[in-house]
Amino acid sequence: MTQQLARVTLPDIQRPVAGQLDRVVDELRRLIAADFPIIAEVNEHLLRMKGKLFRPTLLLLSAQATGAGAADPRAVTLAAIVELIHLATLVHDDSVDHSPLRRGMPTINGLFSHQVAVIMGDYLYSRAIVELVRLEDLAPLRVFARVTNEMTVGEMRQLEAHDKLAYGEGQYDALIQAKTASLLSGACEVGALRGAPAHRDALARFGRALGMAFQITDDLLDYTQPQAVTGKPSGLDLKEHKVTLPLIAALERMDAAGRRCVADLMATPEPRDEQVAEVIRLVEVSGGLECARRHALEHAQHAEAELETLPPSPARDALRDSITYAVERHS
Amino acid sequence: MTQQLARVTLPDIQRPVAGQLDRVVDELRRLIAADFPIIAEVNEHLLRMKGKLFRPTLLLLSAQATGAGAADPRAVTLAAIVELIHLATLVHDDSVDHSPLRRGMPTINGLFSHQVAVIMGDYLYSRAIVELVRLEDLAPLRVFARVTNEMTVGEMRQLEAHDKLAYGEGQYDALIQAKTASLLSGACEVGALRGAPAHRDALARFGRALGMAFQITDDLLDYTQPQAVTGKPSGLDLKEHKVTLPLIAALERMDAAGRRCVADLMATPEPRDEQVAEVIRLVEVSGGLECARRHALEHAQHAEAELETLPPSPARDALRDSITYAVERHS
Repeated sequence: MTQQLARVTLPDIQRPVAGQLDRVVDELRRLIAADFPIIAEVNEHLLRMKGKLFRPTLLLLSAQATGAGAADPRAVTLAAIVELIHLATLVHDDSVDHSPLRRGMPTINGLFSHQVAVIMGDYLYSRAIVELVRLEDLAPLRVFARVTNEMTVGEMRQLEAHDKLAYGEGQYDALIQAKTASLLSGACEVGALRGAPAHRDALARFGRALGMAFQITDDLLDYTQPQAVTGKPSGLDLKEHKVTLPLIAALERMDAAGRRCVADLMATPEPRDEQVAEVIRLVEVSGGLECARRHALEHAQHAEAELETLPPSPARDALRDSITYAVERHS
Repeated sequence: MTQQLARVTLPDIQRPVAGQLDRVVDELRRLIAADFPIIAEVNEHLLRMKGKLFRPTLLLLSAQATGAGAADPRAVTLAAIVELIHLATLVHDDSVDHSPLRRGMPTINGLFSHQVAVIMGDYLYSRAIVELVRLEDLAPLRVFARVTNEMTVGEMRQLEAHDKLAYGEGQYDALIQAKTASLLSGACEVGALRGAPAHRDALARFGRALGMAFQITDDLLDYTQPQAVTGKPSGLDLKEHKVTLPLIAALERMDAAGRRCVADLMATPEPRDEQVAEVIRLVEVSGGLECARRHALEHAQHAEAELETLPPSPARDALRDSITYAVERHS
């Protein structure tokens, strides 16, 4: 990676499309407006938790990098729609996981109820489809319909992971491809729809590779990022018995005693902090973190290679920076 | 109603499109096929509970009545898609209500888990969108996108009904329009999309009026239909504190003692059978059933009037019979 040592922030990446991103927020507000008290109330909450607009950023940068960009008035609407789809999946994910918090903020199921969360997810997703239909163009609909279907299959895969110790790298790759990489790829592809077919395909592959690197990094952070209060990694995935790449890679290299320790944790309904800390230590000494980092960097290199086919532009540079951001972020 | 005294069965109504309906079942099987064990397993269960194919029947009859009919190979696919959307909403409804049974069969959330139900609903709905996109025609997508969004708003209305005794006829009408009539109307409208615009609009209004009559009848059955074991009406809506038209109409005519009795039931988390039986009796003697029946018949008459504008055909006759079926069925 050329910029491996630079520290890239999200505002750096967003600079070429900053003006459009402001309008994405207004557009998002318009899309989910409803003259119905509880929907309006839930939506106010969603707008507060909307996060970093990473997917709209990718869509707008892809549009600019392929020459459509500011000329296409639909780009802002499509960018708002990709965030809307993302919000819909977050709401249902939290409902499926019964999570009371996301990024420290209460979830819809936590704040309102499980019922409201299921219905709101449906509401947001159907609003996205209504807006896509309004654009009178089947091409973005085709991409987003495929992607959202793929994401539901990914969610199902996550539920199916029964035999924790036999969960392999192939299954993990299929899961994060469906769960995360598909929507990042879709965002880039839709942004590039009015560009040359070769550029569009390259950006779809770029988004997929970026998404894989992004999710592996996310899963690594659970093992490495010190928490504000405890100063230790959260190990939240382990507590919830979620098997991710660091553990999968480590298990291949672990001795019988280590594997027994992991099996014990997976068999404990609510693992103790010391149990979690011990497995985190085992994963590190077995080289699980190192191996996962190598995988993330491989995907990052694939992503970077795809960008080579695009003409040089500030948007292309920003897309390259987004790779660095994806693999080097700390939250 | 011209055929008010005839007893109409569903197979009578389905006769003009019986051959196509067989293919709808095959098509439905194709649409939800997945090379993924748990999805396949859930889908087998869904196909068993698929019910009477009332919405596909309406779509196919509307196509035939407006002259498209058998000539349009898309009709069977669209009919399967409307059933798929219906199944998706049933799966999420059951999840929202935590219902263990529907029509005596275990629900997805009962048989698998709440998580599987949320994800399967999303899966089915996104499959419907993928198939609609594949038809390369925005017109049916536009109708179904609007309808599914309307249904989610209806679900939200249902949750919002807090002050049970103040729940009025206007709110009830808005609820059943969104929850039930919208999809029946959408089925008819999509069936008629290739017909003359005036016929399409008439069939959309026909479907809406039919849906209103259908849902009011459903809500009446809860007060009137003797159960196999007890010989008494189930009163399930009352047990779950659902306020429907018979009660709304009765409350307007009830004395203070009667209203107090209803208020007591609504304040009891799990009402006793005698309490439910007493409110059912009060609703009947106050004329609530009579009033709801009158409303259902008014909608039925509207529905019949809309059919007058169509040219005579066996399909039009079957649509007329479907009105009789909707208001006179016993389950």
